Amino acid sequence: MEHAGDERIPVAVLGATGSVGQRFVQLLATHPWFRVAELVASDRSAGKAYAEATDWRLDATMPDSAAQLAVKEYSGSLDSPVVFSALPGEVAEEIEQRMAREGRALFTNTSRHRMEPDVPLLIPEVNPDHVRVLDRQRQSRGWSGFIVANPNCSAIHLNLALKPLQQTFGLEAVFVATLQAVSGAGYPGVPSLDIIDNVVPFIPSEEEKMAEETLKLLGGYDGGFQDAEIAMSAHCNRVPVRDGHTECVSVRLARPADPDEVIDAFESFRGRPQELGLPSAPPQPVIVRHELNRPQPVLDRDAAAGMASVVGRVRPCPLLGTKFVVLGHNTIRGAAGASILNAELFRVEGLLPV
Amino acid sequence: MEHAGDERIPVAVLGATGSVGQRFVQLLATHPWFRVAELVASDRSAGKAYAEATDWRLDATMPDSAAQLAVKEYSGSLDSPVVFSALPGEVAEEIEQRMAREGRALFTNTSRHRMEPDVPLLIPEVNPDHVRVLDRQRQSRGWSGFIVANPNCSAIHLNLALKPLQQTFGLEAVFVATLQAVSGAGYPGVPSLDIIDNVVPFIPSEEEKMAEETLKLLGGYDGGFQDAEIAMSAHCNRVPVRDGHTECVSVRLARPADPDEVIDAFESFRGRPQELGLPSAPPQPVIVRHELNRPQPVLDRDAAAGMASVVGRVRPCPLLGTKFVVLGHNTIRGAAGASILNAELFRVEGLLPV
Amino acid sequence: MEHAGDERIPVAVLGATGSVGQRFVQLLATHPWFRVAELVASDRSAGKAYAEATDWRLDATMPDSAAQLAVKEYSGSLDSPVVFSALPGEVAEEIEQRMAREGRALFTNTSRHRMEPDVPLLIPEVNPDHVRVLDRQRQSRGWSGFIVANPNCSAIHLNLALKPLQQTFGLEAVFVATLQAVSGAGYPGVPSLDIIDNVVPFIPSEEEKMAEETLKLLGGYDGGFQDAEIAMSAHCNRVPVRDGHTECVSVRLARPADPDEVIDAFESFRGRPQELGLPSAPPQPVIVRHELNRPQPVLDRDAAAGMASVVGRVRPCPLLGTKFVVLGHNTIRGAAGASILNAELFRVEGLLPV
Amino acid sequence: MEHAGDERIPVAVLGATGSVGQRFVQLLATHPWFRVAELVASDRSAGKAYAEATDWRLDATMPDSAAQLAVKEYSGSLDSPVVFSALPGEVAEEIEQRMAREGRALFTNTSRHRMEPDVPLLIPEVNPDHVRVLDRQRQSRGWSGFIVANPNCSAIHLNLALKPLQQTFGLEAVFVATLQAVSGAGYPGVPSLDIIDNVVPFIPSEEEKMAEETLKLLGGYDGGFQDAEIAMSAHCNRVPVRDGHTECVSVRLARPADPDEVIDAFESFRGRPQELGLPSAPPQPVIVRHELNRPQPVLDRDAAAGMASVVGRVRPCPLLGTKFVVLGHNTIRGAAGASILNAELFRVEGLLPV
Repeated sequence: MEHAGDERIPVAVLGATGSVGQRFVQLLATHPWFRVAELVASDRSAGKAYAEATDWRLDATMPDSAAQLAVKEYSGSLDSPVVFSALPGEVAEEIEQRMAREGRALFTNTSRHRMEPDVPLLIPEVNPDHVRVLDRQRQSRGWSGFIVANPNCSAIHLNLALKPLQQTFGLEAVFVATLQAVSGAGYPGVPSLDIIDNVVPFIPSEEEKMAEETLKLLGGYDGGFQDAEIAMSAHCNRVPVRDGHTECVSVRLARPADPDEVIDAFESFRGRPQELGLPSAPPQPVIVRHELNRPQPVLDRDAAAGMASVVGRVRPCPLLGTKFVVLGHNTIRGAAGASILNAELFRVEGLLPV
Repeated sequence: MEHAGDERIPVAVLGATGSVGQRFVQLLATHPWFRVAELVASDRSAGKAYAEATDWRLDATMPDSAAQLAVKEYSGSLDSPVVFSALPGEVAEEIEQRMAREGRALFTNTSRHRMEPDVPLLIPEVNPDHVRVLDRQRQSRGWSGFIVANPNCSAIHLNLALKPLQQTFGLEAVFVATLQAVSGAGYPGVPSLDIIDNVVPFIPSEEEKMAEETLKLLGGYDGGFQDAEIAMSAHCNRVPVRDGHTECVSVRLARPADPDEVIDAFESFRGRPQELGLPSAPPQPVIVRHELNRPQPVLDRDAAAGMASVVGRVRPCPLLGTKFVVLGHNTIRGAAGASILNAELFRVEGLLPV
Repeated sequence: MEHAGDERIPVAVLGATGSVGQRFVQLLATHPWFRVAELVASDRSAGKAYAEATDWRLDATMPDSAAQLAVKEYSGSLDSPVVFSALPGEVAEEIEQRMAREGRALFTNTSRHRMEPDVPLLIPEVNPDHVRVLDRQRQSRGWSGFIVANPNCSAIHLNLALKPLQQTFGLEAVFVATLQAVSGAGYPGVPSLDIIDNVVPFIPSEEEKMAEETLKLLGGYDGGFQDAEIAMSAHCNRVPVRDGHTECVSVRLARPADPDEVIDAFESFRGRPQELGLPSAPPQPVIVRHELNRPQPVLDRDAAAGMASVVGRVRPCPLLGTKFVVLGHNTIRGAAGASILNAELFRVEGLLPV
Repeated sequence: MEHAGDERIPVAVLGATGSVGQRFVQLLATHPWFRVAELVASDRSAGKAYAEATDWRLDATMPDSAAQLAVKEYSGSLDSPVVFSALPGEVAEEIEQRMAREGRALFTNTSRHRMEPDVPLLIPEVNPDHVRVLDRQRQSRGWSGFIVANPNCSAIHLNLALKPLQQTFGLEAVFVATLQAVSGAGYPGVPSLDIIDNVVPFIPSEEEKMAEETLKLLGGYDGGFQDAEIAMSAHCNRVPVRDGHTECVSVRLARPADPDEVIDAFESFRGRPQELGLPSAPPQPVIVRHELNRPQPVLDRDAAAGMASVVGRVRPCPLLGTKFVVLGHNTIRGAAGASILNAELFRVEGLLPV
């Protein structure tokens, strides 16, 4: 793919053979600003062509431009100034920090650095001002590059729905019960014997992540992060769905609102990516479906190419005041697409080291 | 199969060819006190042998004793003094009331009469005292027989779990999000295109039923029903599971309790059916699983032959105080088995017209 | 959509609200030659806007151009010279024949007329010469228009794979066992209780259709259709897959061939649609996957926008000589897309009444 | 639960924590002749209580008698004279041979020794005379104990159906296409992303095993095994079903027979286990269902407690003469139950070292 005249920024993908890594490769294949130049994976894959090293599990075909790239090993040196990480948790710390130390812009989907006090946990529509922490990050770490994290797949769609409510009405309490797709656990991930004709009402650490990430995302930044003051409880479940997390949400708003006002807040919501016209930005971050039985994974997960959150069933909650359902694609807007949108914001803001 | 010396009480099943009707037939086949004498279904089936009229969908084999019974029509007269109803909603009113008028004991699984002010909505472990309303029913209606209803499949398992909490700690608020099996919608019920690789976050009238039935079930009876004073909100979802409803529950107790106390309340709970040793009574109405990832439909729906509710993941809820998961078989304890247990209670209490 | 300067041919879709009808609407929305001008459905839908009358079940969004069209009734008169039919079997005969009598080109996906001796059963890559029967059809029926049928969804993909073998090696015997998607049965179609955690080894009339249609498709036309002399046996199964029929095929070739020769015959196969560059024609009608475990529905059903057949596992068969697996999208190339490709061929050949 | 007066033969289960190992434990829990005395698994599990070491995946509850047994390691010494093996392939050879060398009766479900010329591959209804090879095995190997294998899960049900045809009509050719359950691949086995809304038309080595095992099973023994002279071809597929393999079969009989004769051959078939009344023997090894759409996994896999093969759709095959569908439980009769039935036969025949 590299060829004379391709002015796109070369990027590397860490953990490129895994399921989120594959999404990065697929979404970047036709990206107007970024070009996949380096694919990095574990020693077992290193040296092989990407097509050979990868058990491709997406319904879209593997891009030709990636298929013949030789997979690099984690310990080697990279040329790309921008790096996307889909590393397994256990190796993320050392490698991601090395990338930042070497001066690269590291956009990570892994959980390792999300809650660090000097790392922005970023959804461009929700908390774009959090990028201000990067000065502190560079200072305290002594890095020439940086690390930017995106949230957990369930937290992203929840917070895309919560943000317009917070900014319009104020937000005091959130109850959420999730029905999460198996692709959220990677590949091989969930064994089929655990999920055919079944539900698993437990996902390790997920309920904790959803709560703590939400408080950071909806909180302020004033030289340091200040958690939002929201009471929050999550129940997380795995269901026999390939892609698309469904979340049942009840909220207590500071200023009570009827369903029509809530719907209007969702539909009129726009953020920095929409103002800037970023290439991966959905025209409308939160789409509202008005049918009684929507959103549904098979019908709504690909809305706006998988980059929007789809809300439905907005109605009064006898307990907290308002309830609704939100659904989104967990490996596009919930993972790889989230990192890419973060990188797009950084490019436009002039924050990339290129 | 009726034969000389079979002293069991002859019973009729209304709506016998449908999926709950099949459960009645299966569960009654080996019952020590009741004998299936009459199977009643729509005109389309009337006159045929049950085996021929029925598209049998249970994994247990159709009982030989039922297979050759000729299906009767709704408009005909019946001999059985005890009748179980799994009628479709639209015809339930007229037929069920006729049965009671004719002096029969009618135990119904349909929703038509559940919320009537003179009909007991009965779970023998939860509100056995509600049978006292029958005097009023007979009086006001002028019937020689009576109608007793059992709750909706989701409400039964929720209330089996709530009752021990209410009586031990007091109960102020309930949040529940359900993941319900497709058998809850009968047969043909949910089209496969609606549910393979999918979730439907809506079940018509289900959230309303769960709320209103819970308030009646946990409320008192003092010449009239008094709704329990509990704030309640339900989110109901359909998932690709054959049998077994999973419910994520958060509760605010009047007296806060730690998880160990709550577990103890569940495990020590016993009701009238257990005291009386009713044949279909589970030894322990609420079973607690201590594994991190239980209960699960495939592993737990058949606990105590499908007659128990299985609880797990008892833990603190940041919002309401306590949260847990409850799961139960929706067509056994959640439907046909519930009616049968009601009839067993009535027999022991001497309330049957035989 | 209709607007000054839109020179595309107006077309009507019969049975537009059903699942194949929806595919027609979706595939035609961006068609370069045809424009959906009329949507026709049962009385229950007539008069409503298409968006309101339709329970849309495709993952692609309903096209705006169709959403606001008022649904017409079957008995009304139509303006479009070209008509696509996805009618239910019971009403197809009368309505389809009326269309042809009125001078329209009727391309049908229903089975009613497929085996008529004066109706071409057409796959443009397989038997384009069969259109010659239309002279006879017009003569014998006295119609100014005509009826052209496409085969059953399983037969189309089977025959796309068999044709290159027949023309390269000669074909004597075919054994096929299918694993068919639920969308093949329409909507509501297969009840979820019949297919979750299950397989149904029977599809009414399917085995007969596959056999008789194959003999017509691979047979000659010489003033009349001559069945191909092929011994054939089919086993048809329904599996819990949304879209994409998988077929295990063993064949006895007239001239035995090793797998490499067979693969070469598949890969080099091209037909009239490829020569003519028809808009819906896949560049290569039969794609061969070389991985050990392909084709698979989720990975391969959308190959060439759902218009190709995907073959894999070409290997020796101890019994018949050669075996392989073929997979294809059953509602795109297997239904709506097949009719559209037929209409495209007719336009280029100058056979449309416009 | 060893206790004074328990006269049952103590047995060991190798690979006890895996999914077939769990089936052994479940099926043996209430066995009249055998008592689970030792559970053996990999070092990772050794020393732990079985309940703690095992991720129990069966819908039946773990037997109390097994839950508290301490898991032993492979390298330790055993007391039990009878051993059931569900070992992973890679370690089976050394351990199983050691068991036989030490004088134990080793009944194995693993594939390692199945095709050895001195090991009986045994289905008691099909080839009970093959046990005669044990003299040769002891002689050539110098073992005081012995190894007896049971076939692959798909081959067992296929051969239970083929045997009555072979002995009644003679059997010349077999075509089979399977739809196999995920439990056949063990746990974790098939990843859910590979099988939700999908089919995988490939199972490593399965087609080869089905062919070679069938020829051995249906062949004679005359001092050495003689392969049956049957032309055979298999297509093997994985489908989203938990338990129960479905197989579409076409056969060429030496003496052509109409469906009624074939059905009669199936229904009248009895073998040594039925003559001897072995405790795990199904009353009728091959059950015929007469409904058009049977057998189906959810409805038929548990027939005769999972020990029978269920046949349906017996009809003419245009290619080979006769076709039908056979279905059976793959981890009961297809694995653990098969080994147990073999051991029961050995006990009655006086061949156990006890």
